[in-house]
Amino acid sequence: MQYFYEPSKGHGLPHDPLNSIVGPRPIGWISSLGHSGVRNLAPYSFFNLFNYKPPIIGFASTSAKDSVRNARETGEFVWNLVTREIAERMNATSATVPYEIDEFDLAGLTAAQSRLVKPPRVAESPVHFECKVTDIVQMKDHHGTTVPTWLVLGEVVAVHILETLLKNGLFDTFAAGVVLRGGGPSAYAAITPENRFDMKRPR
Amino acid sequence: MQYFYEPSKGHGLPHDPLNSIVGPRPIGWISSLGHSGVRNLAPYSFFNLFNYKPPIIGFASTSAKDSVRNARETGEFVWNLVTREIAERMNATSATVPYEIDEFDLAGLTAAQSRLVKPPRVAESPVHFECKVTDIVQMKDHHGTTVPTWLVLGEVVAVHILETLLKNGLFDTFAAGVVLRGGGPSAYAAITPENRFDMKRPR
Repeated sequence: MQYFYEPSKGHGLPHDPLNSIVGPRPIGWISSLGHSGVRNLAPYSFFNLFNYKPPIIGFASTSAKDSVRNARETGEFVWNLVTREIAERMNATSATVPYEIDEFDLAGLTAAQSRLVKPPRVAESPVHFECKVTDIVQMKDHHGTTVPTWLVLGEVVAVHILETLLKNGLFDTFAAGVVLRGGGPSAYAAITPENRFDMKRPR
Repeated sequence: MQYFYEPSKGHGLPHDPLNSIVGPRPIGWISSLGHSGVRNLAPYSFFNLFNYKPPIIGFASTSAKDSVRNARETGEFVWNLVTREIAERMNATSATVPYEIDEFDLAGLTAAQSRLVKPPRVAESPVHFECKVTDIVQMKDHHGTTVPTWLVLGEVVAVHILETLLKNGLFDTFAAGVVLRGGGPSAYAAITPENRFDMKRPR
């Protein structure tokens, strides 16, 4: 039996199941800088890679949060990989705090200078992408009415990878202790080597 | 020590590490229909949820593949959840075949009629989102030059969930046997209850 609903008429369940169904998801942990120089750091769960050459990543933000404001003001942001060791500190940066609050300080994280952009990297994170904004797309519904959600897209202009995570030059996702966002208010997934299986793409 | 590179100058590694770093990722297994009535079914690994209300999902396609052509022609597509049981059949639909080939037939999958859109659902998949296209965004690099990659965004107008996956009305990602795309040519992740940990969002 299938449970069927039309979202525009309500889901009829105790919680909206969507973010549990599309998941677990890579986390867009985004550092940015306002014109005033205030640092911002926040996790986004609607995030992904979108293109290889040039590399383009993007994160969606409901209501124009500080990261969107900063990306618009400065045209730059940095993505930081979340691993199990720093998951609690990532979570601390998800608090809703005023624009003036520096989430690096709030979560006890160290800001490392970037090379090609101004926003800092999270020194405790093992991988960083320095990005330049390529587009900020406002969402629409299927009638064409705009929705207060923006997708910030950026080209990755520089990459930093902790060398111990490269084995024979390959980045091993399953050994890196990557953390993904699950559904509901509190679920996360810690990826391990046991999760892996392989399938070759058919010719 | 950090390995540093600028993607525009090459990564200097045996394989591009990007899709191993941003991952593993939910799979956008998209069914669509051409004007001519030919069915298409293909997996996209640059896929995610982008908004809750209304629910909006999207997938990015390098070069305008059949799914993009069909989404543009008909304004509709369907997303199908990939679980471990049907992972090999999903993989079979990733073969590069001519437009005329029906991947449902190719992979031995059953097409189930949708309720609000014309493209069929994969009957063997436990969750389906019927979608109406809201936008098709072409990617740009940070100089503003267009790139031959399109992000197809769609509003989820109808949801089907296999009832056995709802426990007290909640969809349990970790019990559903969800499969994610890892990096490299062949890596996938099968998510299990052991992956889960919980962190409450700070106030």
